[in-house]
Amino acid sequence: MDPAGSMGMAPLAAWPALGGIGRAWMGGPAHKDGKVMHPDLLNPDLKELQYAVRGELYLKGEELRKAGKEIIFTNVGNPHALGAKPLTFPRQVLALVAAPFLLDHPKVSEMFPSDAIARAKKLLVDFKGGIGAYSDSKGNPVVRQEVADFIEKRDGFPANPENIFLTDGASVAVRLALEAMIRDSDDVVMVPIPQYPLYSASIALYGGSLAGYYLDESQGWSMDMNSVRQVIKDQRSKGKCVRAIVYINPGNPTGQCLSYANLQELIKFAHEEKVVLLADEVYQENVYQDKLPFVSSKKVLMEMGGDAARDVELISFHTVSKGSPGECGLRGGYAEFTNMHPDTMAELYKAVSINLSPNTVGQVSMSLLVNPPKPGDVSYDQYKQEREAEIASLRRRAHLVTDGFNAMEGFSCNFVEGAMYAFPKVEIPAKAVEKAKSLGKSPDVFYCLRLLEETGISTVPGSGFGQKEGTFHLRTTILPREEKMKEFVEKFKKFNEAFRKEYA
Amino acid sequence: MDPAGSMGMAPLAAWPALGGIGRAWMGGPAHKDGKVMHPDLLNPDLKELQYAVRGELYLKGEELRKAGKEIIFTNVGNPHALGAKPLTFPRQVLALVAAPFLLDHPKVSEMFPSDAIARAKKLLVDFKGGIGAYSDSKGNPVVRQEVADFIEKRDGFPANPENIFLTDGASVAVRLALEAMIRDSDDVVMVPIPQYPLYSASIALYGGSLAGYYLDESQGWSMDMNSVRQVIKDQRSKGKCVRAIVYINPGNPTGQCLSYANLQELIKFAHEEKVVLLADEVYQENVYQDKLPFVSSKKVLMEMGGDAARDVELISFHTVSKGSPGECGLRGGYAEFTNMHPDTMAELYKAVSINLSPNTVGQVSMSLLVNPPKPGDVSYDQYKQEREAEIASLRRRAHLVTDGFNAMEGFSCNFVEGAMYAFPKVEIPAKAVEKAKSLGKSPDVFYCLRLLEETGISTVPGSGFGQKEGTFHLRTTILPREEKMKEFVEKFKKFNEAFRKEYA
Repeated sequence: MDPAGSMGMAPLAAWPALGGIGRAWMGGPAHKDGKVMHPDLLNPDLKELQYAVRGELYLKGEELRKAGKEIIFTNVGNPHALGAKPLTFPRQVLALVAAPFLLDHPKVSEMFPSDAIARAKKLLVDFKGGIGAYSDSKGNPVVRQEVADFIEKRDGFPANPENIFLTDGASVAVRLALEAMIRDSDDVVMVPIPQYPLYSASIALYGGSLAGYYLDESQGWSMDMNSVRQVIKDQRSKGKCVRAIVYINPGNPTGQCLSYANLQELIKFAHEEKVVLLADEVYQENVYQDKLPFVSSKKVLMEMGGDAARDVELISFHTVSKGSPGECGLRGGYAEFTNMHPDTMAELYKAVSINLSPNTVGQVSMSLLVNPPKPGDVSYDQYKQEREAEIASLRRRAHLVTDGFNAMEGFSCNFVEGAMYAFPKVEIPAKAVEKAKSLGKSPDVFYCLRLLEETGISTVPGSGFGQKEGTFHLRTTILPREEKMKEFVEKFKKFNEAFRKEYA
Repeated sequence: MDPAGSMGMAPLAAWPALGGIGRAWMGGPAHKDGKVMHPDLLNPDLKELQYAVRGELYLKGEELRKAGKEIIFTNVGNPHALGAKPLTFPRQVLALVAAPFLLDHPKVSEMFPSDAIARAKKLLVDFKGGIGAYSDSKGNPVVRQEVADFIEKRDGFPANPENIFLTDGASVAVRLALEAMIRDSDDVVMVPIPQYPLYSASIALYGGSLAGYYLDESQGWSMDMNSVRQVIKDQRSKGKCVRAIVYINPGNPTGQCLSYANLQELIKFAHEEKVVLLADEVYQENVYQDKLPFVSSKKVLMEMGGDAARDVELISFHTVSKGSPGECGLRGGYAEFTNMHPDTMAELYKAVSINLSPNTVGQVSMSLLVNPPKPGDVSYDQYKQEREAEIASLRRRAHLVTDGFNAMEGFSCNFVEGAMYAFPKVEIPAKAVEKAKSLGKSPDVFYCLRLLEETGISTVPGSGFGQKEGTFHLRTTILPREEKMKEFVEKFKKFNEAFRKEYA
């Protein structure tokens, strides 16, 4: 963030004789074309950040869609866009809190079940002024208590609603944590490679540094603690201050689930090395095998007990966008802060206050996710059936996609243990690599662009997430509906065969 | 943002012999109490920012509310929290898009008017996957077109939907613009004094500098262009680069409406001096007199024509939170960018992509605000009547509040021409000023705290917005319902008399 950085000049400090003249002297307030917000004069951190999930492939896909081509958007975990239906009960309640006058209509009980009506009435008491009023900046206190109860039930340890912030999706919560902890480029956040680019983009935007630790593809994308420890050692030898380690469990884009023992090691590491744990647990309901069920970091931390349970700073994130609701558009999320300094909580509260209030519909959705119908409620059976059916279907699709890729020449793909994505390794023929380079493109970008143009399948190249030098990957969601999945796999396979033939 | 700044040490550059040792050497990654996210080790820009609207007064109010005291929250423009009812038609449509299965119910037309049903069906086509799917990062393209049509109808000049970003409320849009243009503390944004603290807080958070220009209280809080010009001159003589000027029309907290001529002068100023215009126009529907109707900056700019119309960079903001909907909780807003460099638009698009999608319910609400029922539609008459009644009631309340304050000893208050706030000047007796100082509080904070404790009326002290040295103010909304307004004014008056007596 040195004042002259964006102009490639020495920092102002090197020009003591010019002290007080500063930027106005260096070319005036506007670019020579007259634009004040000229791209050359923007915040350099903003310019530097990259965000592949909505990058070249996405833009190309949008362009083809506008031109009339049918696009299968498997580039982003957006289940409803591919035909997933919302859960009925939460949407009944949402309709009633959106239109409270329906509750006075004589026909309301013909259109809505009694428990949805009762729940809407309760929410309209909890949300003073209804969903049209700002809530507290960290979210409605009743919903925060419901989240705390959900966490307690999940983990077997109490949670404090004052340490829970409701946010417009988990992304906003992640960015809040990063913005608070990053002071400048000497501050480092450790991030898995491959990673979800929310992390790299936000770290760049806030002027920090990223240090990647590689997940081990040959071991089902597991985390190798020796390599994690090596990274922090290397960073420190460069004089950097490692502030936090991010991990995504279940993994995005890699789909692995972390074991209890692995989480224990991570906590031990955080305790010894004094780093904050950033636990991205938004896929906690998306688990497709029984060997590694989801375990929260909070639970493992509390079960470890001792100093660690009192000391280790943990921030965990959850959302209504994933799991069985898949309510991406409603933007409901939360962060739970564990073992934070009380004055830091006050600073975070102040920071979220600038936006006044997270959206109330997202908060209501979070309430319905963490406090769903109970056995005996009118809607219980249907609700339970809908949730289980969606996860069971995703489990079948996880197998279909993994098996599909592993049957393709040049592909190898770890089983999708959880989350919503497959991240296969793709061998790209030498001639295709050459061709890509001649076009100034990364070979995986070239492959994905050709796939998109020829099949309409929109994926994200591995380079957007990070991958070992010399290897190529791509990320696809496992979200096409089951009835479409066979077609998806076949189209993909056919393309791959033709591509390999073309560049053999 | 110098690396050692937060520790009160010389910048690292002054320790060349230690190059490469850096922060890790300076005390390690954690505070001596063991906390990594210790308040002393947070982003200093975040720590520095202040946000009075949710500051000491708000927290005290919340504390008293929890203890059982009835609080009148006139500290924030949150109409539904004080009893404003949502407009019926938009909420009917919202209910149907939240629960699309209702559209197949045989009784739907007994509970919903036909135009609400038709509109919901259209929105469910426009939003592929419904409100549960992420939209494009800058918002649904159909809604952006509707916003463009609304602007064209309002101003008589075309708008380009590609230059319109839908956002989670206008605050997010304002912060996007500031984050993009601020590079470091040599970059200055001019802000009116008094101002809405969203601006001061965001400028601090992004590491920029704020230069205030005073509004003239003796002239109905009008903008004095000579003083505006003096400020930019002063900033430049200090070597600062003034990037933009913020103005709020109608004004917050000051309630004034800018004249056509004033907007022309502002545009001329921006053109000559090369600064971006940040036009906060969220209160455009909240106008309570006929002499100064709302005129958008875009319209004035386009009517000026010539170089200015092609050159001047303008960003204007609007919301569903204010006006007759008052839908604060739904977080729907937009920014329109005029005369921006295309590569800058691409950078802004990339920046909003990190959060994937603004919330869809806010987008639907914006669609309903800018594209309401038309004459002849079943719901037209009721919709029109509800909107007009709310604004007419606010107009009466603007008079009640202004007159109420001007009838109070030691108070003087400009007429609330628009927006949702009164910002009276309050004489605070010398003994009360002394008392406040002995408590380490600003006298206006002391006055507002006493008001809160004794009447339950929650306001924001003028020092949270900025005021001329030696003067004191407070901000209150004009939002208590009319039937409560008399009580509000009388409680306030009684307190003021007792306070003045106590400190006479």
